[in-house]
Parts: sequence; C-alpha cells; structure tokens
Amino acid sequence: MSTGQTPATAPLLSSMHAQERGLEIGREAHALCATLYPYCRSLTGEGVRETLRKLRAIAPIQIEEVPSGTRAYDWVVPDEWQIRDAYVLDGRGRRIVDFNASNLHVVGNSAPINARVTKAELLQHLHTDPAHPDWIPYRHSYYRESWGFCAPHRLIQGLEDAEYQVCIDSRLAPGSLTYGELLVPGAEAGEILISTHTCHPSLCNDNLSGIAVAALLARELAGRPLRFSVRFLFLPATLGPIVWLSRNEDRAAQVRGGLVLAGIGDGGEPTYTRSRRGRTQIDRAMEHIFEHCSPAARIRDFAPMGYDQRQYCSPGFDLPVGGLMRTPNAEYEQYHTSADDLSFIEAQALGDSWRLVWLAIAILQEDRRYLNLSPKGEPRLGPRGLFADAERLGLLWILNFSDGRHTLLDIAERSRVPFWRLAEGARRLEESGLLREVSERE
Amino acid sequence: MSTGQTPATAPLLSSMHAQERGLEIGREAHALCATLYPYCRSLTGEGVRETLRKLRAIAPIQIEEVPSGTRAYDWVVPDEWQIRDAYVLDGRGRRIVDFNASNLHVVGNSAPINARVTKAELLQHLHTDPAHPDWIPYRHSYYRESWGFCAPHRLIQGLEDAEYQVCIDSRLAPGSLTYGELLVPGAEAGEILISTHTCHPSLCNDNLSGIAVAALLARELAGRPLRFSVRFLFLPATLGPIVWLSRNEDRAAQVRGGLVLAGIGDGGEPTYTRSRRGRTQIDRAMEHIFEHCSPAARIRDFAPMGYDQRQYCSPGFDLPVGGLMRTPNAEYEQYHTSADDLSFIEAQALGDSWRLVWLAIAILQEDRRYLNLSPKGEPRLGPRGLFADAERLGLLWILNFSDGRHTLLDIAERSRVPFWRLAEGARRLEESGLLREVSERE
Amino acid sequence: MSTGQTPATAPLLSSMHAQERGLEIGREAHALCATLYPYCRSLTGEGVRETLRKLRAIAPIQIEEVPSGTRAYDWVVPDEWQIRDAYVLDGRGRRIVDFNASNLHVVGNSAPINARVTKAELLQHLHTDPAHPDWIPYRHSYYRESWGFCAPHRLIQGLEDAEYQVCIDSRLAPGSLTYGELLVPGAEAGEILISTHTCHPSLCNDNLSGIAVAALLARELAGRPLRFSVRFLFLPATLGPIVWLSRNEDRAAQVRGGLVLAGIGDGGEPTYTRSRRGRTQIDRAMEHIFEHCSPAARIRDFAPMGYDQRQYCSPGFDLPVGGLMRTPNAEYEQYHTSADDLSFIEAQALGDSWRLVWLAIAILQEDRRYLNLSPKGEPRLGPRGLFADAERLGLLWILNFSDGRHTLLDIAERSRVPFWRLAEGARRLEESGLLREVSERE
Repeated sequence: MSTGQTPATAPLLSSMHAQERGLEIGREAHALCATLYPYCRSLTGEGVRETLRKLRAIAPIQIEEVPSGTRAYDWVVPDEWQIRDAYVLDGRGRRIVDFNASNLHVVGNSAPINARVTKAELLQHLHTDPAHPDWIPYRHSYYRESWGFCAPHRLIQGLEDAEYQVCIDSRLAPGSLTYGELLVPGAEAGEILISTHTCHPSLCNDNLSGIAVAALLARELAGRPLRFSVRFLFLPATLGPIVWLSRNEDRAAQVRGGLVLAGIGDGGEPTYTRSRRGRTQIDRAMEHIFEHCSPAARIRDFAPMGYDQRQYCSPGFDLPVGGLMRTPNAEYEQYHTSADDLSFIEAQALGDSWRLVWLAIAILQEDRRYLNLSPKGEPRLGPRGLFADAERLGLLWILNFSDGRHTLLDIAERSRVPFWRLAEGARRLEESGLLREVSERE
Repeated sequence: MSTGQTPATAPLLSSMHAQERGLEIGREAHALCATLYPYCRSLTGEGVRETLRKLRAIAPIQIEEVPSGTRAYDWVVPDEWQIRDAYVLDGRGRRIVDFNASNLHVVGNSAPINARVTKAELLQHLHTDPAHPDWIPYRHSYYRESWGFCAPHRLIQGLEDAEYQVCIDSRLAPGSLTYGELLVPGAEAGEILISTHTCHPSLCNDNLSGIAVAALLARELAGRPLRFSVRFLFLPATLGPIVWLSRNEDRAAQVRGGLVLAGIGDGGEPTYTRSRRGRTQIDRAMEHIFEHCSPAARIRDFAPMGYDQRQYCSPGFDLPVGGLMRTPNAEYEQYHTSADDLSFIEAQALGDSWRLVWLAIAILQEDRRYLNLSPKGEPRLGPRGLFADAERLGLLWILNFSDGRHTLLDIAERSRVPFWRLAEGARRLEESGLLREVSERE
Repeated sequence: MSTGQTPATAPLLSSMHAQERGLEIGREAHALCATLYPYCRSLTGEGVRETLRKLRAIAPIQIEEVPSGTRAYDWVVPDEWQIRDAYVLDGRGRRIVDFNASNLHVVGNSAPINARVTKAELLQHLHTDPAHPDWIPYRHSYYRESWGFCAPHRLIQGLEDAEYQVCIDSRLAPGSLTYGELLVPGAEAGEILISTHTCHPSLCNDNLSGIAVAALLARELAGRPLRFSVRFLFLPATLGPIVWLSRNEDRAAQVRGGLVLAGIGDGGEPTYTRSRRGRTQIDRAMEHIFEHCSPAARIRDFAPMGYDQRQYCSPGFDLPVGGLMRTPNAEYEQYHTSADDLSFIEAQALGDSWRLVWLAIAILQEDRRYLNLSPKGEPRLGPRGLFADAERLGLLWILNFSDGRHTLLDIAERSRVPFWRLAEGARRLEESGLLREVSERE
C-alpha cells in the first residue's frame, strides 16, 4: 500500500534513547541463548525446528519447510540430517567422545557409521585444535558425504588402544530445509530485512547472539504501526538466503535496506560491513549511528566473503544489505570452537547490538524529505516558541537544508546533529507550519 | 549589459601584490574605526545613520530608509530606537552606571524607564560577566520589549544601597531601518556582493572592522572600469539582509559570488566559512588565496549559524556567498564585551583582510576560460619571446589546460601557480596569438 | 580489425611472474646501453641513425626520415647536424678539450667554427659545473645557432694561455630528422604506445635506459598474437613526438594507453607520472602494479613539464599516456652530466623497469569485462573443482562484480587481488561456464 500519506508510525525514535531498555533486552537475550544452547542445529534437521519453535513463544515467526530436492538457482536442497547419538568407545567400552556431552563432538551433517576402526583410521576422522588443546573445534561436511568427530586435542595423547568402536547414529534422507520468517507489516511499500543464520549447533556468539537479538527486535516491533514493513528471516547460512531469494524475488525487490546479524554478542566493539553498493541508506545510517553511539566501532567495505549479505548482495540482486558483527569472525580465537559458549557472550553486548539495530530500523523508517515553507531568509523562531530548543534540535540546519533534495539523514550527516534530534526538530517545525513533508514521488 | 566583449577592466590584479598598499589601508581602516567608535549603533536609529554619513566621505554610499512596519518575508521592520541618555543613580545621586561613559552600558533597543527600584530589581536588569569583572558585556533585546543595563561585574560588589534610580531616556516609535548601499558598476551582467553588519555599538572587531574594510574597498574600486559590478551593503545583522533581499530579489539572482565581512580586525589568522554550496567560485578563490597568501588560515564548511551569509544562503536564495572572519566569533573572550575596543584591532590585520578581499574580488573579476589556438603539441615559446617567463607565469600550464573547459582558477588549482601570475601569463599568450578568450556562453 | 571475438592472445600474464626473466633482460639491456653509449646522438644526425640501425638487430624497427623544412604544427624540422671532430688547442697545440674523448665536450647542434680566440672569448663558450668539478655537463643549442664546449670545471683553473684555437668540424645543412617505429599488430582495433627519446649523446640513464628497455620489450612482443597492437617509437624529444603526431593523427586516435620511458635505469625507486586525464586505464594499471610489485614507488600528477608525454597529452590530443621514470630527472645530480655513465645504471633496475612496463602492457591487453552467468546467489564452486583455488584467484570477487559494468582492473582495485591472479581466475570461471566475456560494444 502506498497512499502518499504518512502513516501514524509508532515513535520508534522516542524509544531509542532507552539505554536501560537495551540492558533489559540484553539480559533477556542472554537467557534466550541459554535456552537454545543445547539444540543440535545444522543445515537441516530437528535442531533448527526446535529452535524456531522456541522463538515462536517470543514472536509469531512462521516456520517454512522446503523439501529436499527443491532447486534454488545453482543449488539443490539436500537430504535432511537426523542425529540421535554419536560416540567413540575405547578398548574398555568407555565413551571417550560423546555427543551427549556436546553436540560439537560430531561433525555436522555426518553420515552414519557403526564400525570398529584402527587408531590410525580414527585419527583420520578426528578433528582437534592443537593451539587450544582443551577446546572442541566445530566442523561440518555439508556437500560431501563423510563422517567425523571433533574433540579436544589433549584426547589424542590419551589414545592408547589400537582399536575403537565408532558410532554415529544419524540419517541423511529426504526431508526438508527449515527456516523461520516473520513480516511486521508497514503502511507504505518497501521492506527492511533482518536476516540471521540458524545452522550452528552449541555456539553462542555464532550465532545464538543473532537469533536472540533478531527475535527480541521482532517482538518489540510486532503490532506497532510502521511506515515500512520489517521482515525477519531465521535461516541456515548460504543455502538459506539462496532458497529464500529463489522463492521471493518479488519481495527481494522491495528491500529498502537490511542487516545480516551474526556474532553480535561478544564483548568487542561493533563492526559494520557495508553493502556492495557502499553508500546506501543503511550504510549511511550505520555510519551515523556509530558516529554518535559507538565511536570505537569499525566500518569495513563490502567483500564477497562475509556472512549472508554476500547472497543478498550477489550481482543478480545487489540489495542494500550490510552486515553487523562485533569482533569479526576471523579475529577471535573462540570462533568455531566450544569456547564460544555462554560465558563468551555478554548481556551488555547483546543489548548494545539490539539498540544499534533498533536505531538503524528507526532511521530507515523515519528518514524523510521536507520542504521549508519560509525559505527566503530565516523564519522567526521566537514567536513560534522554537527558540529555546533550536540548537538542540538542529532547527536552523533543518530549515536551511529542507529544500526538497536533502533528507533528514543527509542533514544529520552534514550537521553532525544526531538523526533522532533532527527527527524531533522536524516534527516541531512541521507542527508550527514551517515545514511540510515531501513525498518520495515528488 | 553583456556584449560578449571583454571590457578594458582595470588591472585589479596588478595592484594586488601591493602589500604596502595593504598596510597603508590598514592604518586608514584603524583610524576610521576610531572615528566611528563612539556612535551608538543598533538595529535601527541615529547611530547607524551617523555611521553611514561618515562613510559617505570615503565612498558614495546611498543611505536607504525602510519604514517601520514594512514586511520582509517572515519579518516586520520594528519601531525605531532613539536613545538620549541612560544611567543608574545610587542613594547619593551618583551615576554609578552612565551611558555617556560607554554606550555598552545600556541594553540595545531598551524600552524607556525612569523609576526608583530596589537593589534586587536592579540586579534582575543588570548584566555582568563574572569571568571578566572589569569588562562591560554587550547585550541587546530586539524582539522582546524590555529594559536593562550592562556593567563590569565588580560594580555589583559595590552596591551597598537598598534602592536606585534607573533612567533610560529612549523611545521606540515608528521610524525606519537604515542601511547603506553602493554599486560600483561593471560592463557585464553579474554582481559581486560585499556585505557587512552595522548594528553593533562601540565594538571594534565586531564590527567596525568589517565596516571600515568594506568602505575602503569601495573607495578603491569606485570609478574603475570593472567587468562585473561590485555591490557593497552596510546593514544591520539578520534583519538587514532579509529586508534587502525582499526588496532586491532580481539583484540577488545576479550575484556571482560574495563575502560577508565580520570580525576581520583582530590579530588572529583569517577564517573563511564556505558558502552553502561549498565549491563555488568564491569558495575556490578563497581557498586558493589562503594557499598562497595565508597558509595558516582556516577554512570551515557552511553552517546555518554564522553571520549574515546564513540569510544569503537560505534555501530560497542559496547564493554563492561565504564569510570572512579572523578569529571566529565564539572563540575569543573579548567577543561582545567592552574589551573589543580600539586596542583589540590591529592596522596590520585590517590591511591583511583588505588585501584578501581585494584578491577575491580580483579573481572573481578576472577568472576566464581560454582556448589554446595551437593545441597539438606544444607551440614554440622562444620565437615569441615567451621562454624566459614561461615558468614564472605558468605558460605551459595555461596552454595545456586551455581547452575551453578549464578557467584560470581551475588551472591555478591544478598547477598551484598563483592566479595572478596565470592571469598575466594568459594576457601574454593572448597578445602573442596563442590564446583566445572563450565567452561564458560558448 | 574488430570481430567481437577474443583472439587467442599470447599468455602475456603467465610470463609476468618471471622475475628471473626480468633479471636476464636487465643484463641484456645494460650490455645494449654499453654498445650504444659511444654514438653522438642529437636532435638529428648520424648518431641517431647508427643507434637505430643497431636496434634493428634486436627488433624489426623501421627507420623513418623526415626532411628538413617539413612543417609539423607550430614547428619546422631543422637542418641536420653533422659532427666529425671538435677540440680546443692550448698555446702549445695540445687538445685540452677533445670530442674524441667524450661527445659531451661539444654543445649539441653546435655551428661550425675554426678560430683563434682569447681566453675571455673561450670562457663565454665553455660550460662547466662548479658543483661537480670533475664532471662534464651536457648542453645543446637546438633552436638558436651558436657554438660551445663543455668541460670539467677544474679545466678552467688550468687555463694559463692567453689565446686558444677552437675548432668544431660540424655542418648544419638540409637533411632529415630520423626516428624509429615498430608496430606489433593486434587482432582488435586500438593501440598501446611505448615512446622513448633518442636525442641524448653519451648519457646512460637519460636515455639509453629507455631505448634499451623499449627495444627488448619490442623483441619479446614481436611475433606474439596480441589483442591490441603495440606501437614503439624511438624519437628525439619534443620535436620527435610532434612530428610523429602531425603525420599520424589517425593512429594517435587509436591509442588506448601508453607510456613514455625515460631515465629508467638508475637504482632509485620507480616514479609514474599520470596522464593528463589522470584516471585512465594506464594510470590505474600503473597504480595497481606499483601497489603489488613496487610499494615504495612514487606516483605524481600530470604536469606539462615532463618528458614527451606533454606532447601526447597536449590538449589537441589528450591521449591516455603517462610517464615512467625511476628517480625523477630533476632529482639526481648526475642528470645531464658525464656522471650519467654506464656505472650509474644497473642491470637490476633496467630489468625491473622492463617488468613494470611488461605488466602494464599485459593489463591493457587483458583487461576485460565479464558477465556472471549465475548471478543470483553464489554458484557452487566445489562441484566445478574451483573451491581450492577460490581465494588465491579471487573467484568470489570476480563472480560478485562481473555484472557487465566492472572490468578485471576494476575488480583488482576493489579486491586488492593482483590483476594477474584475477585474469587466471576469470579464465577458470569462463571454462567452467560461470562467466562469459562482454564485448566493449555491449
């Protein structure tokens, strides 16, 4: 729907200073991560479904199932993985590697096996990280059928037997790929996309952090009257976005801006990776938010090696979608190991990430162009009761640059006045009759 | 008039190296400030008229009167202020605050009063600056009728009486707003605007400095054959430009570039604030002049909070007008106090400011596009007697970039050869038949 | 010819890592400089012809003769200079200055003389360099008829006689200007231009270095199937390019990019001076090559005072031609003195310069636009055997930016992956059917 009328959007921006709200949300997010931590998520399978079902208690996410064999551009949805148990028994029958202790112990998507193997054979299928001998590394084998275990490196020193029983009680069989989707509808045409990946097992920063923050954003937005719709996607990395895009090309074309959330719970500073186009509204919004709220944050140019933005930014789509992380994935040693656990993520960091995304959504919702209706010389602010707040709300900046070409975000960049203050200023000027909104089609 | 012919403009640029001329002018400007210092200027009133009448001895400035009640966009010309005397008497009848000692003692535009007041009442109407207890602050109350005095803060410690007689012998009554205007006519269509504010009482840097420098520029230009007209405006801040614009929209449309002069007599380095558009000819000219003549000078982006350029740069006009100051107004403590007196401004600084504006006017007058008439390979300079001066006058730069697209200022920026040397070089090349001017319409 | 088909160009890029090849070439280049060192080159005359004849043993360069009196834009080809001997005899008949010892002893293009002169007269015609009393400076007098000698400054202290016999056995008479030209033909329309000056006598860096490197590039390219033609020009500075341009305006219009080689044998870091347009393909190619192969190299903006690029970049042509030097001419003290001899140039520097130009030619030959044929989401690399090399060859970069707008050089700049790796990657992707070339006309 696009009526040219500004809908009575909820005051997203007025909530945005609620840093305490961010802290509360952060604590909720951490608790949600703890709830979801044990599920054995993977590219497909029951762990993802269990995760999404839990999220439905928070926000009305729809669970979509895409059958194995479905084509999606260059890809095909593979067989679904079911995993019940997995272990390695030593000569005395003791479980020296046990899936029940940690779902990281089995290589993701492992084919089933139940066999007696020599120590040498076992070692060929056993992944460890010598640099961190107490941590279990995370491995998966999605598109090549094989089996394997992951274990702390110190286990190897203890392997004294010549033979071991290996058992992976899994099944790769036709089923479906599962993802979650929620559309919070807006009054005008156009969508904001929030996407996060769901395919990692018991790893917290990567990516229960993204899942939890996205779900809690969805909860806060659901039911609010919005200008533009906000779409939330919870899907397995790489294949998930490709499948979604292949089924929703018309919706993709509606995306005005978006963020891929991944690794947003660690204590490092935020990192934004720009969209492929580099200077779209979401890119500029994130830069503006960082300037005012997170001056130590990092901004990096788009590279086709990041998280799922590389699918949304593939040249056939080239959507204005950037990525939000905290410490970049390649740059912390806990990455893809059992040390990325509940102690590695922080409620405060989760809350801060929540707040940054909230602000980004708010700017994309509230960025508008206005026309100064008294454009020759300055209008008098005093008689309109605007003098006292003029500086705080950037009123002279708004008046000077509201020539129908500059949006509030343009003015925020130029003036270095925070967007949220300008948005309040524009409302005040509009009420006083000095400003009127210019529709996007004018 | 626009004939497409280059008029025989006076050699503005040949005068520009006259640094001694700048020094002479600086001493004249300082003496002129001393003459104008005692007048009690304000938004309206006799002090402005007296000031402009004195300037007529220097240049043939026209004095314009705009009746109270005249509408100008969002504004109305207020009643005129007349002030004859003002004082505070202590219990023994002594003038402890006396307008005759300094016109800063009365709040500008004060309503009349003659009353016995308690000490507490007096203090509510007495402005002081505790940080500088010996200085009188400058205050005015233009658009809200009230009365008040300003005094050194140490006066307050001496207030031992319970009651005081306050008298402001002023009148706010229909009259007019007064401003001065001088057009030095040019041969081609287009104007250069020099504007300076006249509404401050006995304050030297702000803004006798601007008044004196503008008057002496007008004197030097008057009677010269010019390419483009130069218009000088001497008017009260804010309302003055708004009134002028409202009466001269057609002339405003002719402005090719301009400067607002304010606070150009203190010993600090020059500061240029860019026009709203940011890269117009005057902006680039000032940047070029600073690069070669004033490397420690500052350049700042446009902000709608500066001096009167914010009216010329309001979105309904968006004129290419920047601002010249020395130390920015908010950044020296003498600003708007009695310490901004004749000892605070320097003849050398006034002369240097005069020279910078002279150079800017000269560049705007003399910036032209040329066409190299021997554009394939270099032409031979030796047989034309041009070899010896080729490097000094940037002849190879001029020849290479005179392709009809680049002006001399473009070439000056690219080559870092001063504009005035290129202008001489272009003249030499034109005389030798290697160059011809390209009109603006070609 | 332009068929829209990609010709089977030789794998220029596959040779480019051959740093050893560069070293071999460097030794050959140094030996070639030694062979050419003794010839007395000048604007015209037999020394240039002898030089070009020697080069014909390396590559099939055509020798062109342009008769004296031929007009070329603002210039006329002058009389040809012939020089057989030149000397100064002291009172005892000893040759105290002797052309046979060094051809730098005679001012280039000197008119003939055979006379007895006083010491004072001799000194007026004797050029020395007091700062380097053992070096002979290099001087010429091309466009003003005169005579003169050059000698080490210490000679002057030894001049004890009152009179001297001066003899320059030269002749300025109608003849021709001589230059060399070689076109290595390509399959598509468009040329790459390599130009170097031949008019300096026994000076090694300036410019036997350029002559030798250009000749050895021509030898390596001759006979290879190329996409675009490569044209080599060996001509006297300034007048040579002007004459060539005046005879080849149609060919000049075909130049896609080019380099002027001058002073590329000294041990300093490379220096590239941009073309007048500044961001053409050759400018970007050189910047890219320096980034990856020569990080300490310098890049400077175009100035109309460099070597012969100032003719190719004159506004009537404005060709995309930059300049390659090592230490810039004005910045080494051996410049234009007898100290610019065989010991001043280094085989390694010559080889490195050869390699840089080879890479530049290769990039100009191989820069192409492609279209990702699987542009929606990433295509699967694993099943196509592309996974292992994906990072090294920048495959994801190529796929993401091959949208028909970006060339490989664009992608190389953005990704910071070396062009030569991307070129290999593009070939691999093309073979796998994921990419197709987009012709320049599409």
